[in-house]
Amino acid sequence: MALQAVTLGIDIGGTNTVLGVVDAQGVCLAETFLQTRASEPVEYYLPRLYDSIESLYSTVSATCEMKGIGIGAPNGNYYSGTIEQAANLNWGDIVYMRQLVHERFGVPVALTNDANAAALGEMLFGAARGMKHFLVVTLGTGLGSGIVVNGDVLYGSDGFAGELGHTIVKENGRMCGCGRRGCLETYSSASGIRRTMVELFAERTESSGLRDVSFNAMTAAAISSAAQAGDSLAQTAFELTGATLGKALANVIACFSPEAVILFGGLANAGDLILNPTRRAMEETTLNIFQGKTRLLLSELMDKNAAVLGASALMWKELEKLGTL
Amino acid sequence: MALQAVTLGIDIGGTNTVLGVVDAQGVCLAETFLQTRASEPVEYYLPRLYDSIESLYSTVSATCEMKGIGIGAPNGNYYSGTIEQAANLNWGDIVYMRQLVHERFGVPVALTNDANAAALGEMLFGAARGMKHFLVVTLGTGLGSGIVVNGDVLYGSDGFAGELGHTIVKENGRMCGCGRRGCLETYSSASGIRRTMVELFAERTESSGLRDVSFNAMTAAAISSAAQAGDSLAQTAFELTGATLGKALANVIACFSPEAVILFGGLANAGDLILNPTRRAMEETTLNIFQGKTRLLLSELMDKNAAVLGASALMWKELEKLGTL
Repeated sequence: MALQAVTLGIDIGGTNTVLGVVDAQGVCLAETFLQTRASEPVEYYLPRLYDSIESLYSTVSATCEMKGIGIGAPNGNYYSGTIEQAANLNWGDIVYMRQLVHERFGVPVALTNDANAAALGEMLFGAARGMKHFLVVTLGTGLGSGIVVNGDVLYGSDGFAGELGHTIVKENGRMCGCGRRGCLETYSSASGIRRTMVELFAERTESSGLRDVSFNAMTAAAISSAAQAGDSLAQTAFELTGATLGKALANVIACFSPEAVILFGGLANAGDLILNPTRRAMEETTLNIFQGKTRLLLSELMDKNAAVLGASALMWKELEKLGTL
Repeated sequence: MALQAVTLGIDIGGTNTVLGVVDAQGVCLAETFLQTRASEPVEYYLPRLYDSIESLYSTVSATCEMKGIGIGAPNGNYYSGTIEQAANLNWGDIVYMRQLVHERFGVPVALTNDANAAALGEMLFGAARGMKHFLVVTLGTGLGSGIVVNGDVLYGSDGFAGELGHTIVKENGRMCGCGRRGCLETYSSASGIRRTMVELFAERTESSGLRDVSFNAMTAAAISSAAQAGDSLAQTAFELTGATLGKALANVIACFSPEAVILFGGLANAGDLILNPTRRAMEETTLNIFQGKTRLLLSELMDKNAAVLGASALMWKELEKLGTL
């Protein structure tokens, strides 16, 4: 019997590293994880990662042929295959992850950051199937973006393109972790909506159950629940968050003219609460020649292991480029 | 003797249509032009265009082989090969220019807008030689942009990507011809700097020779001359124009991570007057990981017939894609 072609997708996060064996249709055949232990040096991590890869693959090796390994990692650079100065990993300046894994297993290895992997996951297995021009916007603690142009991720000259979260949308706006002010992610992200919420507490007088919750304890999910339960301040927070995002997307559309923008991540779980105001502002602000052309969609991978599927998709895409499929 | 491979570049403007026979090194071997007569229907224009192509080619046909025809035109759409609702041409809704010219001459024909053609011209023959990720920003009456990603123009899903001039940089800002407010081109363009100049007349008290010039009579060249002669208001106008442009480019860099941004067109003729404040604002505003990476350059085709070289470059690029070189 012919072996089934599979790739291995690896998502390296600050807490866990998740691994999955994924077929060409995006079905995850086997999955495992290990603790990343981000505070330990990478020399301790690598043998544990290798062991996990081997034991996971051993569960399917009787029926599957491993074609390659795709890795999504914070600050992952596609060109160099390195993880560079990842803030949440105590791994030093630069880890040659692609080379290390390739030397250990002898199959093609590709690496990129999580937002780019998410974009590839949507293109091969999710809401962007068949599209050649689209963006995935991940609304987590920050705002990440993976931009696809002509059917491939836009990596830019240095591998770090797609920092939509750090486009400045308000001059002298909110302080950002990057050291500047007014970045999109300080408004439109899970942490941004929390800042908007307490700004509304300061500015307005309406009561809200969330006035009993501390800033640090206030999650995007809690704001979403409150809005769904009729909390007018929480509803306003979503309106403002979506309005800022929608206007930023109108500028993105003027540059890229994408078929779709796909929202993913914590804040996207709020569904229509974030989609509706974003879509309204996007449509109202978009240049006339682009109006009605770009669809605003939710990820189709949010209930699945999107990060592993994305990392696997990176390798499927790579095999297509290499012409080995 | 083997015939020399050439392409024909055609730049369709509101006043004139310029045609040139261009070799693979960007040398223009022969050139001619005809009046566009934009108010006449396209049916009158086409026979005159065909005649010009034939008579121009006849001057080189003894030594050259015509490989294809590239056309730069307002609202030119690369995908459809059409000119759609060009505001300054009375040609109706849609002209199937690529198809018409192809049927008449039987060689490959490609068509795009002028900013995209300019980008290809810089990539093959000008300041972007060897680059795979860059932008050309044309600072004329409006602000146009041609964006190159992975060595090819970003056309987007509909062929109209690259409208950087219509990204909104100031909420409730200046009225734009597109019907919205705050578009980049209302600030950073030959017409934008004129608006800035009269705003300064209103706001400040310093004398300026340009206070004797009407709004309609005031050109970017006149503001540039005044600034060079020490006119402090004109100098300030350049500072403000460059600051707005530089901040917008910082956002562009966050998305595209280009090797360079190349300025072209009327306002770019001012050289350091526009380069310096733009570069300063761009560097100051750019996200740390991109700082010092993207070069701000002047076009290397401004003294040449850039529009014809760009249109020709479009066809050379097309022949490369077709694999017929």
